[in-house]
Amino acid sequence: MRETFNRQLTEMRQELVYIYANIDLALHDALDALSEGDKDKAKAVKAKTREMDEHCAALEQKAFMLIATQQPVASDLRLIQFVIYANFNLARMSNHVRNIAKTAKRCAGRDVPGQLIDLLASEGHLVYRVLSSCVTAIVEDDLRAASSLPVLDEPVDELYKQFFRSLATLGPDDDMDAASRVIMASRMLERISDNAVEIGERLVFLLTGKRRSLDDLRDLDDDDLQEMYAARGVGLVTDRDTDEQLAHQIPELRHEGGDASDEQ
Amino acid sequence: MRETFNRQLTEMRQELVYIYANIDLALHDALDALSEGDKDKAKAVKAKTREMDEHCAALEQKAFMLIATQQPVASDLRLIQFVIYANFNLARMSNHVRNIAKTAKRCAGRDVPGQLIDLLASEGHLVYRVLSSCVTAIVEDDLRAASSLPVLDEPVDELYKQFFRSLATLGPDDDMDAASRVIMASRMLERISDNAVEIGERLVFLLTGKRRSLDDLRDLDDDDLQEMYAARGVGLVTDRDTDEQLAHQIPELRHEGGDASDEQ
Repeated sequence: MRETFNRQLTEMRQELVYIYANIDLALHDALDALSEGDKDKAKAVKAKTREMDEHCAALEQKAFMLIATQQPVASDLRLIQFVIYANFNLARMSNHVRNIAKTAKRCAGRDVPGQLIDLLASEGHLVYRVLSSCVTAIVEDDLRAASSLPVLDEPVDELYKQFFRSLATLGPDDDMDAASRVIMASRMLERISDNAVEIGERLVFLLTGKRRSLDDLRDLDDDDLQEMYAARGVGLVTDRDTDEQLAHQIPELRHEGGDASDEQ
Repeated sequence: MRETFNRQLTEMRQELVYIYANIDLALHDALDALSEGDKDKAKAVKAKTREMDEHCAALEQKAFMLIATQQPVASDLRLIQFVIYANFNLARMSNHVRNIAKTAKRCAGRDVPGQLIDLLASEGHLVYRVLSSCVTAIVEDDLRAASSLPVLDEPVDELYKQFFRSLATLGPDDDMDAASRVIMASRMLERISDNAVEIGERLVFLLTGKRRSLDDLRDLDDDDLQEMYAARGVGLVTDRDTDEQLAHQIPELRHEGGDASDEQ
């Protein structure tokens, strides 16, 4: 019975990382579709996000069912709470990625101002960093990585503001409708980054049992940080290699591990 | 036993509306503090949001405990899921309100460009409308009110963009630091509005048992909408007057009901 429960917890955790990695990959494709004007790729991204929405809904039901049937406590309960919370954020992220894909479809074949496309690409790379740090924090139970998320998120906000400054410099020959759609996409990117920070924030509660903000953690040295960790149950420590393999589908993490075929 | 459970569900629902109303009121105070340059009011808002954070954390634990001890199904389970989801959003809203209060403290006594203060006041009124419609939808199980939320949210986004246009017109004599803080506050407002829309989105699942988006609902006529409602358990229908009284603390709803003392 207990063994089954531990396996269910482990599977739930891995399903979360699976969804996370897929949404991250879908975001890469959505931004590629936008910069390449590739309608088919955009369509595929939309389908992928719908698929991930189904996964999110199923994972949520599974998590609530597990609470009802197993009455978990301590780190088991916190793990399920974390999955539910992170899952809510992933569903939002999936929605934002879908909106970027819609923008890509609508902008395909149109003359989108080049400076905005460049800005969006830069913003994308900043957001990829946030996303990969967040999943690393999850997979490696890494409070330090989690505490870095607000710092990584700051330049995203800064870049987002540049879109508006850039918009002000456009002339009458520019496609303003396409431009404002790209700005919408930049806002979605910024939201996705925020969602990842929120997941990181929640990771603190999972790992420490205390509701502390990421900002509270930033000034702690390594010893202080180590002391914050609460005991981790079997469901939280079993088969972490699988989590890591799932996470390493994300381009930004490929060089850090995984098997050799990832490196090609 | 069942009676106790129903009472717990009802109390949980009412606690959610209590938190909602308090955060809404805190937002009013935060924006007032900012426009009046009132440091003490801003400080009181910060304290209030911390208090609401505690309420949110306690409500979340209570909700999870109820699932573990009562194994709810159907609308009982969906109600608890709704409370958990809405509660997450309320905690985010509380955080955004606190950030506005911080801005108010920092801008007090400084010469904030008047056009930005005016814009923020306008945006505030749009967000109040979203917030009051959302709580009405919750308190009255009103899918129609919920489906109007994205429509009410649109002008918030539009107004938010005006801040950036306005920023571009400021001159060297303007306090740019104060200006950018007010822009930050405008972004928090926009987030709060989004959080309310997300709560409304989730209300659809509570009331219909189906995961439909608010946009799907918008084109349905009243008969179609009526047919979407799923059966509501005792925990969802008991003592709704209390919910309404709690909600009617919000200024925008005072004229619509409550006792006579509210009208003075």
